[in-house]
Amino acid sequence: TLPGLSPAGDIPGPSHGIAYPEGWQEWSTIAVSHRTDNNTLRVILGNAAAVQAARAGQTDPWPDGAVLGKVVWKDVQLENWEAATAPGEFVHAEFMFRDSGQYADTHGWGWARWVGLEQKPFDGGMQVCISCHTPVKERNWVFTDPAPFPPLR
Amino acid sequence: TLPGLSPAGDIPGPSHGIAYPEGWQEWSTIAVSHRTDNNTLRVILGNAAAVQAARAGQTDPWPDGAVLGKVVWKDVQLENWEAATAPGEFVHAEFMFRDSGQYADTHGWGWARWVGLEQKPFDGGMQVCISCHTPVKERNWVFTDPAPFPPLR
Ligand code: HEC
Ligand code: HEC
Repeated sequence: TLPGLSPAGDIPGPSHGIAYPEGWQEWSTIAVSHRTDNNTLRVILGNAAAVQAARAGQTDPWPDGAVLGKVVWKDVQLENWEAATAPGEFVHAEFMFRDSGQYADTHGWGWARWVGLEQKPFDGGMQVCISCHTPVKERNWVFTDPAPFPPLR
Repeated sequence: TLPGLSPAGDIPGPSHGIAYPEGWQEWSTIAVSHRTDNNTLRVILGNAAAVQAARAGQTDPWPDGAVLGKVVWKDVQLENWEAATAPGEFVHAEFMFRDSGQYADTHGWGWARWVGLEQKPFDGGMQVCISCHTPVKERNWVFTDPAPFPPLR
């Protein structure tokens, strides 16, 4: 299949009861990261509420309505520039939905993941996510510091 | 200064005679990369025409009107997860503007760069860019393969 094209289909079903965040492919960038322990490249995206909060430094806590997304690819060496690592196989997209009331039991966030280009909903339980994010519980459960950007103009 | 905030200002001046691509901070992602030779993380973005072409695999050649952007940060180790590298200092944003007519002399692209959070226009000449992109002259002068994305829905 061509990049970005996979068999057209219906909207993927919910993950942990959370509806698929349609249109996330068009969200703006909050940060990027490279994990060298499992050789994956990621982009951290946000919906409009999250990007606005990130750019304004209003992330302690993140506002209700903010959705953070993380898109993960296996990394591969760039063919024409050996010292550059670029995205290979798509792994998954996962999201934290901020709602301090609705998600009070899971630290103010709804946790959801869709796997593979076919976007199969993950249903292993939010605890999988939460336990791994415990090192940053004092940071509103978020690892990412928004990358510095020049002001929008 | 807070992330994303720097002294408000006027629109930066042109680079190589090319006007500043206002609003690029909101463009969608085409790919990400990590250069281990100079320790920088980057996101490759595009305007609507470029993202549409990327998602549809119509990049040989890229269509007139497409603008590719590359945003570069120094990399730093993520504080709470040692094996992750995250964006540090903002370096620059640079752009390739596709117009096979207007930019016929520079291989169908206008090449421009704005440096630092203050977005100072680069004026060193397009040849600086072109010479470095020569390894990919058979690829329409573009290194990046768009990352695979699940279809928009
Ligand atoms: C193996 C550990 C681990 C697990 C399991 C995990 N995460 Fe994360 N997550 C991280 C780390 C580390 C980061 C930040 C670095 C990176 O990967 O970019 C992160 C970042 C994120 C981000 C970007 C915002 C932030 O906190 O930086 C989202 C969104 C996210 N994870 C959602 C989830 C969801 C949803 C699940 C479960 C379905 C999950 N994570 C499971 C370790 C984990
Ligand atoms: C030192 C070599 C070098 C120089 C100089 C250089 N580039 Fe690049 N450029 C690269 C490499 C390698 C990539 C792809 C890997 C990466 O960095 O993500 C790239 C990628 C890009 C991209 C993303 C699209 C693509 O080709 O992958 C843009 C846009 C870009 N460069 C613009 C410019 C402009 C504008 C200039 C000059 C003002 C310039 N470059 C100068 C090496 C260079």
